[in-house]
Amino acid sequence: MTIRPAQIGDHLDQVATPSLLIDLDAFERNLDRMASLVPANGKIRLRPHVKTHKCIEVAQAQIARGAVGVCVQTVAEAEAMVAGGVRDVLLTNQIADKARAKRFAALAATATVASCADDPRHVALLDEAAAAAGTNPGMLVEIDVGQHRCGVEPGRQAAALAQSIARSKHLHFRGLQAYHGSAQHLRDPDARRAAIAAAAAATDATLTEIRKAGLEAEIVGGAGTGTFQLEQQAGPWTELQAGSYVFMDADYRRNDAPPQFENALFVLATCSSVARAGHAVIDAGLKAIAFDSGMPLVVAPQGAIYAKASDEHGTLDLDQAALSIGARVRLIPGHCDPTVSLHDWLVGLRGDRVEALWQVRARGPGL
Amino acid sequence: MTIRPAQIGDHLDQVATPSLLIDLDAFERNLDRMASLVPANGKIRLRPHVKTHKCIEVAQAQIARGAVGVCVQTVAEAEAMVAGGVRDVLLTNQIADKARAKRFAALAATATVASCADDPRHVALLDEAAAAAGTNPGMLVEIDVGQHRCGVEPGRQAAALAQSIARSKHLHFRGLQAYHGSAQHLRDPDARRAAIAAAAAATDATLTEIRKAGLEAEIVGGAGTGTFQLEQQAGPWTELQAGSYVFMDADYRRNDAPPQFENALFVLATCSSVARAGHAVIDAGLKAIAFDSGMPLVVAPQGAIYAKASDEHGTLDLDQAALSIGARVRLIPGHCDPTVSLHDWLVGLRGDRVEALWQVRARGPGL
Repeated sequence: MTIRPAQIGDHLDQVATPSLLIDLDAFERNLDRMASLVPANGKIRLRPHVKTHKCIEVAQAQIARGAVGVCVQTVAEAEAMVAGGVRDVLLTNQIADKARAKRFAALAATATVASCADDPRHVALLDEAAAAAGTNPGMLVEIDVGQHRCGVEPGRQAAALAQSIARSKHLHFRGLQAYHGSAQHLRDPDARRAAIAAAAAATDATLTEIRKAGLEAEIVGGAGTGTFQLEQQAGPWTELQAGSYVFMDADYRRNDAPPQFENALFVLATCSSVARAGHAVIDAGLKAIAFDSGMPLVVAPQGAIYAKASDEHGTLDLDQAALSIGARVRLIPGHCDPTVSLHDWLVGLRGDRVEALWQVRARGPGL
Repeated sequence: MTIRPAQIGDHLDQVATPSLLIDLDAFERNLDRMASLVPANGKIRLRPHVKTHKCIEVAQAQIARGAVGVCVQTVAEAEAMVAGGVRDVLLTNQIADKARAKRFAALAATATVASCADDPRHVALLDEAAAAAGTNPGMLVEIDVGQHRCGVEPGRQAAALAQSIARSKHLHFRGLQAYHGSAQHLRDPDARRAAIAAAAAATDATLTEIRKAGLEAEIVGGAGTGTFQLEQQAGPWTELQAGSYVFMDADYRRNDAPPQFENALFVLATCSSVARAGHAVIDAGLKAIAFDSGMPLVVAPQGAIYAKASDEHGTLDLDQAALSIGARVRLIPGHCDPTVSLHDWLVGLRGDRVEALWQVRARGPGL
């Protein structure tokens, strides 16, 4: 159904636009760098988040380099990963309706899966679905360590919820989800350090209560690309959930002391109009790039600035740059995850040749 | 491949989230209202823009009520519309590469199609592709009537480009594209009126030059949902290209004297977490709703405010509203076009029953 932007073996010039390019050399260096920073034989392991890429091939490359499994954010992503052969999937999110609980409980028949709870209702929903499916999914308690989105208060309230999971008939209590999402893009490294130190203290306090309740947290999950080395040093965490490191984006580059990974994801666009002096129009706008974290950076032609987006158009200020109709433009999107989710395919380039064509699975809103 | 959020006959409670709902009663009233405002037997006809909905079924409903054909913004949309039986398609955009020119020229074998030029390069590309395909597509000259995106200067420059189309071997000169996109969302009705008056003067001046060159503009296209009655009264236009009127969005509601159509498009979401007092988290974030034109409005529960979006989460401030885990939330997106493009299906509701399930065609970045 979906139009493929390229075929394996195509030259870069043949790739249709607007499309997503992966620089495979940079991508593989990112994988290798993460594997060296979070080694497979360490006490703290990597469980990368696939909401960044939604690709079986990328997940398998991460697992081949030592990841214990993957994180997903939607049940559809979990289904896609299990269908693609991933055997250990953590849904870092709450399941809040019977239909999704049923789908998720069914996955536990063929893979190790767990989801998160911050309310007894989540426990009851999945327990009931597991009973019907005859499976035993795992469950983590999500605690609010500073993101102020989901998660129960750290401490006794979290331990009480853990007990309710442990007392359920069909669920395993697996541990804690302790992710400080908003710390990832704090620009100041000291602010990131302080945020993760506070999250560590809250997590430690919760683990104390969990142990008092006679339970053990096998998994303590958290961290992202902006902070994972802080969580790695801080103590309580056992699994790091960074995802963006494989591709990176413009917003992470805006951090002071940004993460040491390379930009491997690019939007390829074509110049469609140069009718106005000093400006050019390209074919990548709101339907091809996510703008929630600012404008994309123009990599080529150098000096051009992405000034304005409309549905299917982007307007560049050219300054000293030159563009002609049909010329290619390469951009780094502001935010990788929602940009990838706009596309059906990732075009993997080795130099100027298409070496891989990876499908974006469970693309879109995340049913 | 894509998961269907519902089946025909389902109750609203069974529709998966996050998904797009169409209130079919409101949608049909919008169609009827537009047909009464721009009647099929009038001198000025409607050629609605399908980039709003990307649906064959919606396009056919528009044509059944008198539209002369449709506008599209991408070649993939043109292909989808022709495959769905639409016989007259105007691409209100420039084709800037050989691959797309080839695909578009091929469509002219089975449908009346035309695209736009603002440079001789566009003429040469399509003429060459038409020669190879053995077809005769149409072409319009796009003029810049105030949007400052694409389009040649009105007047003699436009007439010269029209002549180059007329002189080409395989293309028909069909007329002018004169769309003032940025006027649609000017909040002040007087500002909109002034913008369209200036656009009309520029278009009239161009038509004078076109006639001097011995050519005739059969089509003068332009207008959107925010201004189409101004273009209708102003003179030069022959076709009105409004699209958003079928669904409407939150941003059009922010215009003073907003267009007289109803909100027929809603995002359906599920509350997934209520761990924080005064707040609720829903399953519709950046991958389910477009945020370029501001936050979505919360229709139900009344009083709640969409405060913050992340990839797969939305955080609501509840104020006096109440929400429990699993409860449904209904939102009006800020901007309909890019929101629809995030989804694969539109769920058509009659009251509380699913009556239609329409596929979003050529969804995404618009190859």
